[in-house]
Amino acid sequence: MLLLSREDIKKVFTIKDAIEADKKAFRYVVEGKCEIPLRTNIQAPKYDGCFLFMPAYLEEMDTASLKIINIFPHNIDNGIPSSPAQVLLIDGKTGLVTAVLDGTYVTQLRTGAASGAAFDVLAKKDCRIGALIGTGGQAPTQLEAMLAARTLQEVRVYDMNPERTKAFAEIMQEELKDYGARIVPAASSDEAIDDADLIITVTPSSKPVFDGTKVKAGATISCVGAYQHHMQEMDPAILPRASKIYFDSREAVLSESGDILIPLEEGIITEKDFTGDLGDVLLGKVVGRENDDEIIVFETVGVAAQDLVAAKEIYEKAVKAGVGITWG
Amino acid sequence: MLLLSREDIKKVFTIKDAIEADKKAFRYVVEGKCEIPLRTNIQAPKYDGCFLFMPAYLEEMDTASLKIINIFPHNIDNGIPSSPAQVLLIDGKTGLVTAVLDGTYVTQLRTGAASGAAFDVLAKKDCRIGALIGTGGQAPTQLEAMLAARTLQEVRVYDMNPERTKAFAEIMQEELKDYGARIVPAASSDEAIDDADLIITVTPSSKPVFDGTKVKAGATISCVGAYQHHMQEMDPAILPRASKIYFDSREAVLSESGDILIPLEEGIITEKDFTGDLGDVLLGKVVGRENDDEIIVFETVGVAAQDLVAAKEIYEKAVKAGVGITWG
Repeated sequence: MLLLSREDIKKVFTIKDAIEADKKAFRYVVEGKCEIPLRTNIQAPKYDGCFLFMPAYLEEMDTASLKIINIFPHNIDNGIPSSPAQVLLIDGKTGLVTAVLDGTYVTQLRTGAASGAAFDVLAKKDCRIGALIGTGGQAPTQLEAMLAARTLQEVRVYDMNPERTKAFAEIMQEELKDYGARIVPAASSDEAIDDADLIITVTPSSKPVFDGTKVKAGATISCVGAYQHHMQEMDPAILPRASKIYFDSREAVLSESGDILIPLEEGIITEKDFTGDLGDVLLGKVVGRENDDEIIVFETVGVAAQDLVAAKEIYEKAVKAGVGITWG
Repeated sequence: MLLLSREDIKKVFTIKDAIEADKKAFRYVVEGKCEIPLRTNIQAPKYDGCFLFMPAYLEEMDTASLKIINIFPHNIDNGIPSSPAQVLLIDGKTGLVTAVLDGTYVTQLRTGAASGAAFDVLAKKDCRIGALIGTGGQAPTQLEAMLAARTLQEVRVYDMNPERTKAFAEIMQEELKDYGARIVPAASSDEAIDDADLIITVTPSSKPVFDGTKVKAGATISCVGAYQHHMQEMDPAILPRASKIYFDSREAVLSESGDILIPLEEGIITEKDFTGDLGDVLLGKVVGRENDDEIIVFETVGVAAQDLVAAKEIYEKAVKAGVGITWG
């Protein structure tokens, strides 16, 4: 069994690799090739926590995987990550567990890469300005995926907490300087999205975090944070303005995401307004962007196929490079 | 995260420890304290295999666990175990994965210990002769648990393959010599069970592996192998002769085990003949053995609570003894 830490993964797997892995995963999802049983959710009410077990099996890659991701919000008070995770990779020919990967990092990579894949496929060619709303644990890979998908001059980041926004922008400017973009803190979400070609929202908000009437024509928006019914970071005003609305997985989004479920219930949109899944566009079954003026919305809640494909490709690269610790 | 191999576990956890852990687990099960969601089963028809994910959560111990056990019968042709397994231990206060344990060995220990717990609680005090039918991967811990539960003079082992029977008896005689019992191969199951006080069947058979009319008065029988509806190693003739019939978990046995389901369907027994779960006896809610002439039957298919309690107690002992490898 190969043990792969965050540092090990960083040595062999870039955000561009993660974007390509996500594209594969999204194709497998719409083709129905990846078996994804309902995840098991055990509540731990004593600590306001829950344990989530997310299995997947992809015969075509001879691979199964299991992500354990446990949500314990009070961990933050004790300096522990609030969603510790591990991904187990399983050989589909023998059933042997072949690797344990830092699941927090795999999650960050594949979740950022979903926005990167959406921008790569759906954004207009020439983009200059990006906006990132939210500076939490998922934000760094979102930002990097945005920069990897299009060559930007500037990305404005915004968070409710100004100090955190400033600190995040400074750290990211240093870490991602090779992309050649200015990464600057914004004083408001209006300031952040003004003239932005690419917008990512990655917050746990239950109220819209930007003004949908102020998004410019031609923008592509990826909404990442609303993975429960009561969560809503996307301003529903953007939906009637959007020419197209895509999902990572229609089934997953329509079972979880307040960003889409709430406007559906309020009659702001109907199911007819949904253009399709990103995998359908990748397979050429559904049309993508048709001109540079369209506003395009992408909603992602995450599917276990992303963890499986990313973990498998990380593992293969790690074996080839001799990275990681072998145990057992 | 602490990584615990078979050798690590052997250093800190005896079969007697495993028996006490199983007793705790069986009590928790009947008290309804252990949350055990339905296990997830993904079929891999291309290789006649399947992936099984067995989660459990026990608030009282602030612990969750997940056993991955994958059944790939053709592995044997390639010298790989046919049921590779790993157990993940999860801190119930933080959701952090605290340990990965060799799940094959944890399974062997807790499965052997179920028979050990049953004999400890239900067998008559004075036993001299044991019989073990089956010499596969689960057999060594079954044999040791039998020897740990009662001081025996002799254990006869029997398997359809005489060479394997002989080899197994020789290896076990050496490995378990400290228990002071003769471990001898038997030429037939009749020879094995003749005059036996304790009997274990641990085979994948779909036909009874002993003659129930030849079991002597006062014997205690633990049937371990029949974890699917079509499997039947227990001779149903023993059931009308048995004064009492106990299960590790009534719910689990009645959903899986041909040993009990087939005789129920054939009308050989009715649900009224079931005395109770071993945990009920341990809690003093159901009567155990009442005299030395009763024949007592115990059927076990295994419950995830056994993996959880065993893994937790192994982990605590390993931490105390400084055993295992720390990673991540």
